[in-house]
Amino acid sequence: MSENPLHALMNPKSVAIAGAGNNLMKMGTMQALSVLHDGFRGPVYPIHPRDKVVLGLPAYSSPLELPEAPDLGMIVAPVGEVPRLMEGFGERGTKRVIVCTAGFREVGAEGKVLEQQINDIAAKYGIRFLGPNCMGILNSEIHLNLTVMHLDERPGLLGLASQSGTYVTQTLYYLRRQGIRLSKAISSGNEANIGLIDALEYFGEDEQTRAVILYIEAIRDGRRFVETARKVTRHKPVFAQYVGGSEAGARAGLSHTGAMAGPDFLYEGILKQAGIVRVQTIEDLYAHGWAAATQPPLRGRRIGVVTHSGGPGTAMSHTCDQGGLDVIPFSETVQQQIRPLIAPHASCGNPVDLTFNLDTEQMTVRIPEIILGSGEVDGLLIHGPMMTGWMKEVFPHFKPLLKEMTLDQFLGGVVHNLSPAMALPKKFGKPVLVCSFLDREDNFAAAYQDNDIPVFNAPEKAARAMISLYRCFEAQSRKIGKALVPPEKSAEADRILDEAAAAGQKALDEHAAKRILALYGIPVPREILARTADEATAAAETIGGAVALKACSWEIMHKSGKGLIALNLKKQSDVRKAFIGIRKAAGRRVPVLVQEMIPGGRELVVGMTRFPGFDPCILFGLGGVYTEIFRDNTLRLAPLSDAEAEEMLDDIRGKALLGSFRGQPEADREALAQIIQRLGWIAVLHPRIAEIDLNPVILDGPRPVAADALFVLKD
Amino acid sequence: MSENPLHALMNPKSVAIAGAGNNLMKMGTMQALSVLHDGFRGPVYPIHPRDKVVLGLPAYSSPLELPEAPDLGMIVAPVGEVPRLMEGFGERGTKRVIVCTAGFREVGAEGKVLEQQINDIAAKYGIRFLGPNCMGILNSEIHLNLTVMHLDERPGLLGLASQSGTYVTQTLYYLRRQGIRLSKAISSGNEANIGLIDALEYFGEDEQTRAVILYIEAIRDGRRFVETARKVTRHKPVFAQYVGGSEAGARAGLSHTGAMAGPDFLYEGILKQAGIVRVQTIEDLYAHGWAAATQPPLRGRRIGVVTHSGGPGTAMSHTCDQGGLDVIPFSETVQQQIRPLIAPHASCGNPVDLTFNLDTEQMTVRIPEIILGSGEVDGLLIHGPMMTGWMKEVFPHFKPLLKEMTLDQFLGGVVHNLSPAMALPKKFGKPVLVCSFLDREDNFAAAYQDNDIPVFNAPEKAARAMISLYRCFEAQSRKIGKALVPPEKSAEADRILDEAAAAGQKALDEHAAKRILALYGIPVPREILARTADEATAAAETIGGAVALKACSWEIMHKSGKGLIALNLKKQSDVRKAFIGIRKAAGRRVPVLVQEMIPGGRELVVGMTRFPGFDPCILFGLGGVYTEIFRDNTLRLAPLSDAEAEEMLDDIRGKALLGSFRGQPEADREALAQIIQRLGWIAVLHPRIAEIDLNPVILDGPRPVAADALFVLKD
Repeated sequence: MSENPLHALMNPKSVAIAGAGNNLMKMGTMQALSVLHDGFRGPVYPIHPRDKVVLGLPAYSSPLELPEAPDLGMIVAPVGEVPRLMEGFGERGTKRVIVCTAGFREVGAEGKVLEQQINDIAAKYGIRFLGPNCMGILNSEIHLNLTVMHLDERPGLLGLASQSGTYVTQTLYYLRRQGIRLSKAISSGNEANIGLIDALEYFGEDEQTRAVILYIEAIRDGRRFVETARKVTRHKPVFAQYVGGSEAGARAGLSHTGAMAGPDFLYEGILKQAGIVRVQTIEDLYAHGWAAATQPPLRGRRIGVVTHSGGPGTAMSHTCDQGGLDVIPFSETVQQQIRPLIAPHASCGNPVDLTFNLDTEQMTVRIPEIILGSGEVDGLLIHGPMMTGWMKEVFPHFKPLLKEMTLDQFLGGVVHNLSPAMALPKKFGKPVLVCSFLDREDNFAAAYQDNDIPVFNAPEKAARAMISLYRCFEAQSRKIGKALVPPEKSAEADRILDEAAAAGQKALDEHAAKRILALYGIPVPREILARTADEATAAAETIGGAVALKACSWEIMHKSGKGLIALNLKKQSDVRKAFIGIRKAAGRRVPVLVQEMIPGGRELVVGMTRFPGFDPCILFGLGGVYTEIFRDNTLRLAPLSDAEAEEMLDDIRGKALLGSFRGQPEADREALAQIIQRLGWIAVLHPRIAEIDLNPVILDGPRPVAADALFVLKD
Repeated sequence: MSENPLHALMNPKSVAIAGAGNNLMKMGTMQALSVLHDGFRGPVYPIHPRDKVVLGLPAYSSPLELPEAPDLGMIVAPVGEVPRLMEGFGERGTKRVIVCTAGFREVGAEGKVLEQQINDIAAKYGIRFLGPNCMGILNSEIHLNLTVMHLDERPGLLGLASQSGTYVTQTLYYLRRQGIRLSKAISSGNEANIGLIDALEYFGEDEQTRAVILYIEAIRDGRRFVETARKVTRHKPVFAQYVGGSEAGARAGLSHTGAMAGPDFLYEGILKQAGIVRVQTIEDLYAHGWAAATQPPLRGRRIGVVTHSGGPGTAMSHTCDQGGLDVIPFSETVQQQIRPLIAPHASCGNPVDLTFNLDTEQMTVRIPEIILGSGEVDGLLIHGPMMTGWMKEVFPHFKPLLKEMTLDQFLGGVVHNLSPAMALPKKFGKPVLVCSFLDREDNFAAAYQDNDIPVFNAPEKAARAMISLYRCFEAQSRKIGKALVPPEKSAEADRILDEAAAAGQKALDEHAAKRILALYGIPVPREILARTADEATAAAETIGGAVALKACSWEIMHKSGKGLIALNLKKQSDVRKAFIGIRKAAGRRVPVLVQEMIPGGRELVVGMTRFPGFDPCILFGLGGVYTEIFRDNTLRLAPLSDAEAEEMLDDIRGKALLGSFRGQPEADREALAQIIQRLGWIAVLHPRIAEIDLNPVILDGPRPVAADALFVLKD
């Protein structure tokens, strides 16, 4: 495996910046100032077309004139200059470049050409580059800040890769206020060369980075993304925010599967497959990532809550409960230890509610130590530790009574050893998250932040972060599936598809589709194609029992509600009548499929569709008449391992349907997972199939059978 | 209508505080200091058992010794003192009291007795009181702060009533940082006398209060709550956070309806019925309430977005999209006006993305004015206005170049007239919400806050608040239903219930249940009770067509999956066989109901259950086999107006089922609403019915028919 290009790009010993000048209002200048003043120790070379001195440093008119080949070249120059500069860096021997300049693929055809041009130049010289149209990078380990705003001195723990430049620089003040420190940040821009997946892989290997957060607008190589992420998430928590809602609903397809699978829904499934925890806001992305970067893993669902007021305690419990965590009462033994420490009307069950209380030692050390030491919880939420912030609030009221005392003197009276409170997560190896309505103005909030214990300003937010920690643990402890072994490609299936293509069909008829399914071992009903009423009755007799009749033609892709299906026919005369009725409804002499009735009321759907970058995708969910009413489906990238296929079964709201249900036995999960896997392989082996619906897949007792099938072909 | 007791309680001219002392660490002392130092102009009388001087003021040993009857008495004394103090205030002539002291109903039986005692004393003297076990009140209009922390001088606009004391005081610093100002706040505690509903009614009438927020742990009088809220929400936005998750799942019932209706689910429905916008976090409660209190209503779904960077713009659009708002491209005319104002590679569709840009005038005035003036949007989101906060960030980098210039001198160079930006909401009568990653350190963030334009620190949060504003508009513009007119009570229905009760039944048999439904005009299938196979075949013949057979006994409450039902029987021999089969499955000679088959695949549920305080409740949702798999239901308090019943139809995820669907016609919404209303009246008129399931209610074409019915009786 070749080394990840970001190792070198993120750790340069020298940097040249083309676009740095003496105009302080220009982005390149600001970036140069950041690298000059935030602690980077290597040489910095401004490149400027005219000025000989830039920001007090000697400047060079081209990369070729530099005294050495810099490890990293950065380009913030006008768009027209970029190819020449890239060429210059190449010729000078620089192997890593960041192109911040915008005006490439994102502006249309002309920019696309320009982007190809810089790609070609880079290839010629073996350059790997970030961008174009990006903001730069941060590496707190070597105090390298190639963005606009100010980076603090203390190295961080959280790795960020973002497809929006804003989130690597505009938020630095915001993050500082919350005590969140990035280890490294990468703005990936247009990703003409190095992209988000490289960043994810790099962070997976980076020791300084304890957790990874991704801001995603689009993934281009779904397969590599999923494989990389599945590896990283085994040992390091990864979170992502995906925003692509504006495209939602823009997609249409001939199959139900195609119509239901919008991009938001696609990413929802792909991120689950990848073991990545999806969050919905940039706030949660930073904050949950920070919790995972700083806290021991949450290894179980049991949460303790300590509070000094009922509302926040209830809110924390409720939020935990909604997110699948348990806030269950402590044992009598533990309650007996806590009871003497709190007021008589206070509560020691769980939440422990101290009520109005100024003894911070109880809330932040003694009671937490009892709870964390009890073995009855896997993590702890604390609401309300505070002291100096609160004193500042009441000082205006106290002042008249405190005579000449100043605020500083008033606060000076507070002597606290906060170390025992700060030691809790390490001491017990369990996560502790804190909520306070005060910020760094308060000595507790500041101390927690400075000791890498996250502080949230609403109880529900702290609880939500705890839920995310559990999602990380679930991802880390997932089953590893068996390696993917493709089945042999069926020549017969190829022949069926060839014939249909030769006949100009846009789809297969149901009978042909099911023959392909059978060839790959997907269970289908016994069925016979009939071209006359006599053939239909004969077929019914051969099959035996109750039968269904359906119009069978590739042109009839959706049959329900149109008189093209007759179900549960037991008598010869009914079969004959149904045959005639279907012909009449079809308005022509279509062949009619005579099929055994599959009993059982549970109907599922398994489908296939293709997205650019995610090809093929498999959908699993609730089928039958309610398919599109409830859209209770989940999507994954195929081919799928057995473990991945099984994860899909638990990823629908109506998963109880697969359990033992109203007298029906539990579904055969392995058989269902096999249908999901095999449909994936059919799509991989036969790329001319555009979309597939198996709807319904009926549970005949425990056993799934594909009772209907639609294969849509590519144009 | 008698005057709301809070008018007098919230506006006292004089206040006495029992529990104020000279120990600064006591809550009562802190509250007294707040009222003394935050600007209240009336006399304050400390009541203290021993000290003659408290906080520099003359103190009194009992209310009886006060120089006047104070308008408001507050009690923060030990719990044992409370009755005597209440008695004292009563005798002295005080008519409004706040009891902060805890240790009443919330601690068990003994406290309950004590609470009754103070209730009795209050009743004797005509006292109305808040609490016990509460935190006090705030009235910013008269600068009255009866809580612990510091209240700012500037009066607010947002009214808060909270069942947790924390949220009226511990958050005051937090709110100040966000620029949120409460008009009035009421901590309602145990609500022994005055409660949350009084507070809601009071805020509805209070001119200073422009929007209302409620923190709810339990509502005791559902009917009064819904009626009060429906009135208030017609003219004033109301938001609520309900947290009761820890009880979830604690409830069980003999009916499906009873089993599905947990408290969280109950409040979800009740808040919708009330026209109240439910939020999930205390942060959203304050912030969305503040947006509604300060901004003009959002009268449509069309939102404009202005940003200087792609990520936040996309996040805002995506969040709007998910919440049902539209961020659609501007007309070519509008785009032509914007294009000259932005960079060539910038985007002017919607979002307008200025990209890196230091001209705040464009972002905050010129472009917003074009958009808001165009008539193409109903509200505007802006991400990224900033100046001095940003300058402070880059100052450490600039400093070496700025020679001797101090930060203040550097910032002093900024001259901005921010008034045009601040005037936008009023000028155009449309809401404007802002996002900035900087806080009050920045002159723009501070100016927006000080001009009552909410500032959010994440783009998704600003968008979510905009969605809530639309929910408020929907609540304000809802249909007003016809007045409730109960039907006449059926003597025959009473007789059926009497007989069942006399026979010791815990439920009605299906046939009896359906007779009651029919008596109240709810459509049921034709059906005949059969006691022999011959009676069954005769009944089938009388009914004609396909029939269903079902075991019919009150003891068999749930029949499915047990061989107690046979469907779709057309032949005499099949009816006979089914009759024998059902008898065998039942294991005894149960009567068998012969019922016409109702065609149509769409199955709904309408049910009834009773909660303390919410009696009766009606449930509507998806029925049939999937009822408990999907739990796609909604709950309301009955009796219901026609408009309220119709609102339920649109409040399930699977509402598309009621539209024209797979060859089936649109459901008869009026008929469905009537079933919902009538079931409510049955429950009101016959209180001995504990629970009802109508499951399934089948849509026969457009027409709903109650195909099965279970009435559970009270013990």
